[in-house]
Amino acid sequence: MITEVLFLLIREMSREATLDLLARTRLGRLACAQGSQPYIVPFYFVYKNNSLYSFSVVGQKINWMRTNPLVCVEVDEVVSPQEWLSLVIFGRYEELPDTLEYQTERAAAYNLMRERAVWWEPAYAKTIVHGANRSLQPVFYRIDISEITGHRASP
Amino acid sequence: MITEVLFLLIREMSREATLDLLARTRLGRLACAQGSQPYIVPFYFVYKNNSLYSFSVVGQKINWMRTNPLVCVEVDEVVSPQEWLSLVIFGRYEELPDTLEYQTERAAAYNLMRERAVWWEPAYAKTIVHGANRSLQPVFYRIDISEITGHRASP
Repeated sequence: MITEVLFLLIREMSREATLDLLARTRLGRLACAQGSQPYIVPFYFVYKNNSLYSFSVVGQKINWMRTNPLVCVEVDEVVSPQEWLSLVIFGRYEELPDTLEYQTERAAAYNLMRERAVWWEPAYAKTIVHGANRSLQPVFYRIDISEITGHRASP
Repeated sequence: MITEVLFLLIREMSREATLDLLARTRLGRLACAQGSQPYIVPFYFVYKNNSLYSFSVVGQKINWMRTNPLVCVEVDEVVSPQEWLSLVIFGRYEELPDTLEYQTERAAAYNLMRERAVWWEPAYAKTIVHGANRSLQPVFYRIDISEITGHRASP
């Protein structure tokens, strides 16, 4: 039935190459799950010390991750359909609550994201849903990486 | 702690606008879940009649969706950080097996994807993982859409 053959080679990326890609990327897609239903949203992050730092207003994503902290993040860099990099990361959601215990880490996360200009993250924008404004109180969190797999395609 | 205020307005998209975006998009991200662990991969698809048509070689994604057909797809179009569209779709995986019963629908899916030039999909490329070639036998499937939510950001 299929007769076309493509000359596209997909190889695994080295650990170093996956970390380089993570360090230069801001936009990824984050999946969480409730029961057997997965959910994905785009999100902005900063990578540091085996964690992805981000923040969001409270909503479906945060509620689901609070219940089930197992997440998956996908990051890619597409030059052309025949030339791209893609990472799949398994990790764990860790909230950085506004408590004394987390004060230092929250401040560090805040500074990290400010330095790298992640402020245009939609999570912190005014959102009008069903005519009502959502709360703008941000939740800071990190995704602790447990596994990264990277693939590179070349013609 | 946070002092910046962004003037970014996020609104829900109309049903018509979400379908227009789906019709002109080929690349999305697909999430599935096994137990409480979600998994995301980029994928190429063609939208028709409330379904997303795609194909893939057998691998983790197909195995997980065969066990748990509940999936989530994210599609976006980013003009700038302040101007973007994003869709989140909940749906159900339906395999189109190579049997008499599915012959007509498989052929239709094949023609649809050929017409829209989805053939450069990495799923059909030669993949070398751990030094061994993966099977190139493609699995055809569709995602039946149960819910679409679309958001549009503007400055």
